[in-house]
Amino acid sequence: MAAVSKVLNNGYGVSADMRDRVLRSVEKLGYRPSFAARGMRGATDTIGVLLVDMRNPFLAGLTEGIKSDLASEGKVMMMSVGEAEMSIESSLIDAMIDMRMDGVILVAPCLTTDILSDYASQIPTVVIGHHDPEAEGFDTVNSDDCAGAQLAVEHLIARGHEDIWMLTAPLRPGGKEVFHMRERGYRLAMEQAGLADRMHVIRSDTSLGDNPDELVALLDDIPRPGAVFCWSDIHAIPLLTMARERGLRVPRDLAIVGYDNTPTAALPPIGLTSVEQHADQLGRQAAATMLRRVAEGSHGKHVLIQPNLVPRASS
Amino acid sequence: MAAVSKVLNNGYGVSADMRDRVLRSVEKLGYRPSFAARGMRGATDTIGVLLVDMRNPFLAGLTEGIKSDLASEGKVMMMSVGEAEMSIESSLIDAMIDMRMDGVILVAPCLTTDILSDYASQIPTVVIGHHDPEAEGFDTVNSDDCAGAQLAVEHLIARGHEDIWMLTAPLRPGGKEVFHMRERGYRLAMEQAGLADRMHVIRSDTSLGDNPDELVALLDDIPRPGAVFCWSDIHAIPLLTMARERGLRVPRDLAIVGYDNTPTAALPPIGLTSVEQHADQLGRQAAATMLRRVAEGSHGKHVLIQPNLVPRASS
Repeated sequence: MAAVSKVLNNGYGVSADMRDRVLRSVEKLGYRPSFAARGMRGATDTIGVLLVDMRNPFLAGLTEGIKSDLASEGKVMMMSVGEAEMSIESSLIDAMIDMRMDGVILVAPCLTTDILSDYASQIPTVVIGHHDPEAEGFDTVNSDDCAGAQLAVEHLIARGHEDIWMLTAPLRPGGKEVFHMRERGYRLAMEQAGLADRMHVIRSDTSLGDNPDELVALLDDIPRPGAVFCWSDIHAIPLLTMARERGLRVPRDLAIVGYDNTPTAALPPIGLTSVEQHADQLGRQAAATMLRRVAEGSHGKHVLIQPNLVPRASS
Repeated sequence: MAAVSKVLNNGYGVSADMRDRVLRSVEKLGYRPSFAARGMRGATDTIGVLLVDMRNPFLAGLTEGIKSDLASEGKVMMMSVGEAEMSIESSLIDAMIDMRMDGVILVAPCLTTDILSDYASQIPTVVIGHHDPEAEGFDTVNSDDCAGAQLAVEHLIARGHEDIWMLTAPLRPGGKEVFHMRERGYRLAMEQAGLADRMHVIRSDTSLGDNPDELVALLDDIPRPGAVFCWSDIHAIPLLTMARERGLRVPRDLAIVGYDNTPTAALPPIGLTSVEQHADQLGRQAAATMLRRVAEGSHGKHVLIQPNLVPRASS
């Protein structure tokens, strides 16, 4: 096998005859240099990507961005789904470490900063969708979620709304998630406009059923807001279609702004105003940050990308 | 390290004192049994899943089905994206083999049967969305795409349509892809209804731009069909929204049926009739088939799952 390695790696001290014999055997046996074997002593050229789920269309753009930038450096992306559960996330990162991946990119993990730092001491780690600008052990790449929410609320205020509610996800300890930052942006914009007493936040699980109670109550109870800023299109689109089904005129009776600018939001029959956070750019930036971390071992680089608002018929 | 292994594996011949010393060191060093090292001599409990892309929402249900059934057997799913390019697909399967994964599930690969058989001789292989009932080296799990297309066309015929066109993807050599089988179903249903001379097939790339020529021509040229059966919702939804933007009354001026029953099709403002192929069930069946193949080494099992039509406002 030493001879095989020397031939395959163009090593010294291999005669032409030996080279021919080895290459013939290699072809016959289908020999390949093993990633796993190489992994025992170094890089596998593989980056693990941990996703929250597969349902949010925002993730398609993100992973395409990661993949394209990794591919240009000859790295392969291997993804897995953590379902926003700490035990699943941990076991998948363990598996990625055990597979000797070069690094992991974690998308909106629910793990705490302490646990993330612990993993980061074992494997180069870049985190997306987790605001932690003080972290030193790992890098973060985020959209400026606070600024994006401010854009959305300022847009609604400019349209004459005052009773602007926010529809978001349940709070989590630590408060590093994107929806925490978006709520902060909502509150900042309302306070700056002197509308602090009009603030009203509704928290609804992201795995909406067929007729989510919180959305039904929001639409049917009196008083109803004049406008709703939703932390994600995955809440805003059902709210929009349910409002229209109930005969509400959107935006006259109820204006709605979403977040993520998903392909469905852009369809004319939907026409949802939404905040574009440039998923592809976030993915590419995360890949670039990872490649730099693997190569140079940088420390605690934190990138913020500026979002913008895409106005449509819903507001 | 031999002592460490013996302790961790409750091996024989380890004194209590030795066990204590080893376990303390293990804790201190963060030692973990390596997947890669275990992979050198057997199972890594990891199944590789090769996807076409991340944009088709159909894949979310599919991968959730795969994941849930693998998880119940303690197996981890690692996904990668082949982009329907042979060289990328090959290098990713190579990587999965090199990482000593237990098996690979390939979703709608563009590789030929010969190449798939060659890989199947190296790693347990299950293929989804590739009709190859004669294959012996690997298993397939498919929706009955021919039957699904017949359901769609028979539905349009029952609604009084005769000029029914099909919008599908460009032909590929081999003809194992789902859209080939759906075209076969379209042709069968048209022939059985005596409408063979009304058949008309339009092929459009799946990566639609902003104003895809084929769709514009279909809507603007005269004669225009009375109904269009689309091989996938990713074609049907843009066609539907473009038709409405042009002032066509759907379904009166143009009826449209899609395929995959994606979440967007079900939104009331879209209301697209579509064929439900039970992505979750396909995924679970593929996982079960893989687990059986890994455990028992079965040969050439081919599963067909029956689809059904979900009628909505577009037809």
